[in-house]
Amino acid sequence: MTDPRERLGLWGFYNPVQVMFGNGTLEKLPEVVAKRRVLLVTTSGFTRRGVTSKVIQMLEPNVVHVLDDVRANPDVSDLEDREQTVRELGIEVIVALGGGSVIDTGKVLSAVIGLDRKDRRLRERLGRGELNERDRRIPVVALPTTAGTGSEVTPFATVWERRSKKKYSMSGRSLFPETAIVDPLLTLSLPRESTLAAALDAVSQAFEAIWNRNANPITSLYATESLRISLSTIEALVENLDARELRTKMAYASLLAGLAISHTRTALAHSMSYPLTLHFGVPHGLACSFSLPAILELNARADDGRLAKLAHALGFLDTHALVDHLDNLMHRLRIKEWLMEYVPSIQALCTLIDEMFAPDRVTNNLVSVNHETVEAVLRRSLS
Amino acid sequence: MTDPRERLGLWGFYNPVQVMFGNGTLEKLPEVVAKRRVLLVTTSGFTRRGVTSKVIQMLEPNVVHVLDDVRANPDVSDLEDREQTVRELGIEVIVALGGGSVIDTGKVLSAVIGLDRKDRRLRERLGRGELNERDRRIPVVALPTTAGTGSEVTPFATVWERRSKKKYSMSGRSLFPETAIVDPLLTLSLPRESTLAAALDAVSQAFEAIWNRNANPITSLYATESLRISLSTIEALVENLDARELRTKMAYASLLAGLAISHTRTALAHSMSYPLTLHFGVPHGLACSFSLPAILELNARADDGRLAKLAHALGFLDTHALVDHLDNLMHRLRIKEWLMEYVPSIQALCTLIDEMFAPDRVTNNLVSVNHETVEAVLRRSLS
Repeated sequence: MTDPRERLGLWGFYNPVQVMFGNGTLEKLPEVVAKRRVLLVTTSGFTRRGVTSKVIQMLEPNVVHVLDDVRANPDVSDLEDREQTVRELGIEVIVALGGGSVIDTGKVLSAVIGLDRKDRRLRERLGRGELNERDRRIPVVALPTTAGTGSEVTPFATVWERRSKKKYSMSGRSLFPETAIVDPLLTLSLPRESTLAAALDAVSQAFEAIWNRNANPITSLYATESLRISLSTIEALVENLDARELRTKMAYASLLAGLAISHTRTALAHSMSYPLTLHFGVPHGLACSFSLPAILELNARADDGRLAKLAHALGFLDTHALVDHLDNLMHRLRIKEWLMEYVPSIQALCTLIDEMFAPDRVTNNLVSVNHETVEAVLRRSLS
Repeated sequence: MTDPRERLGLWGFYNPVQVMFGNGTLEKLPEVVAKRRVLLVTTSGFTRRGVTSKVIQMLEPNVVHVLDDVRANPDVSDLEDREQTVRELGIEVIVALGGGSVIDTGKVLSAVIGLDRKDRRLRERLGRGELNERDRRIPVVALPTTAGTGSEVTPFATVWERRSKKKYSMSGRSLFPETAIVDPLLTLSLPRESTLAAALDAVSQAFEAIWNRNANPITSLYATESLRISLSTIEALVENLDARELRTKMAYASLLAGLAISHTRTALAHSMSYPLTLHFGVPHGLACSFSLPAILELNARADDGRLAKLAHALGFLDTHALVDHLDNLMHRLRIKEWLMEYVPSIQALCTLIDEMFAPDRVTNNLVSVNHETVEAVLRRSLS
């Protein structure tokens, strides 16, 4: 059995994000922004709770515009409107305060505002997906308010088009935020359901980094440490939403998962999730995690040693014991029941299987899958 | 007892180096250099063994100048001569192929060539130490040929002035290499003594990152994994210099140690080492490692939990067991005897104690030290 952390073939790692972590790190924001002209991207919730005005005051007089109407799963049409609005303001830095949708919106705006006028039509760029490394961009400072997205340290952004039921994934070095200010205190106000969905996203990302064909020793190191923390924190956290220590642990686990997938990208669980979100509005963290025990079991059949190693590192006798543990965790968290609140039936999900093969995701999975494998994963997860 | 990886106070991490790792990664060099005009910095040894000409051929016709006379512990006066030579050549990238001395030379030349004419006197810059983040610089591509320096991923460079018995440490974000190409095959030709010295440097760096006041969860994660690999590889490696798997493991352990100290810097063991190298020519890796068991024992007295955690992660019952293991390792490797080949007497070392308090190094140590502590460490290590 080969330890994947010792099979050191050709690999690379690159993550240029300046990370700042800890309770109260938000105070570093003025120093990070320095004298630059700020576009603040956030949600109406933060404006209502007074956080937006607090940030504007901290940065006085640098905030030249606020976009505080970002919704979950940002839509292309919203973004196109925004781009027109902010292009002429001479923005020098985008501060994105929110969950994955806000940070992804900040990244996409950063990328398109920085483009040449002749090449800036958002929809065309989205269709192409990959951003050129040399694309100019407005630097993004990401302040995650959920512990799970990892977007603060990744070169990816996901936007959606509800009308056409499409998901666009952008990637490229120019999408790396300049700075990630990870202040776990910002996650304290997050209600139980969003806290759980975000934490499940972090768990899913870490597993997907491990059973990924792009895994390397550094991504596996991050992902293993992430799971060591998240799996021992998630249940206590959803029962103790005010526990700062647990919020801090989950924020750190989420950061590590983000660092891992910043190189590997995600795999089958994420690939299967997107149609669930597009068609049934399933929260992302739920959509990408209900299938984890089944996918772990699937990949264990072709384990090159990495999953056994992970199981040992997490304190389990073998991969089967880890599968059992995950099954029990999903059961105790009532994940299946939660998913079925959104989805009419397993059969309805099965009609979407053809949409569950996202390029650059499903092909990353350790085991190659086809229609039947995905159906088996769905039925194993939900029956 | 607090787990340092769970004491998540305010901390940061930033390392923008593009890392490429694995046997044969050297082949990526032309792609990395692209069409840029290259200054190749290396040693006469590589020229003699035909490596220099191989690299020039790979990069044909991009290499516009070669400096192949870098010596161990590069001297300021050498560098000043070089700077004059290369300034006018329109260099766009510096490729540094060699050990720590070569990579540090590349970094210093990169920094000074990029400076404004009016502010470019090397000696003055060295005296100040810190480089401005905004200093322009020529990008450096580092190809380490020893497994131990970590310089390929750090923002530091050390140069020496034998005449005045001074050591200059430069640091600043502009000293981060652009790319580190870590090809363990490049270390295959390294003889036993240099292999051991380099490996000991990696071990020392990883320990110094752990018992460092700047340690944070990410640096401790890197350093712990580094020690897990290096401590179980070092003895086998010096007995099997041609074993590719062991060369690969040590190159990876060295990379991880470099990533760890790229944020923490080093501490007491390194601080004590510099006068040994300046006055007696002790190889750096030997000078910074003979004291490790004594310093581990010293820091264990004020352990906040991090050293016990490290000992457990490495498979030891407690810190005492790790100290014993290190003592035995040093004994089996005949470290004390090797050091005493360079040093006339313990008493002679004790006369240098006042020079062993390097700013930004000794103050990083978990336990504060004074003249008596350092003398005790020396006597504990060498009696």
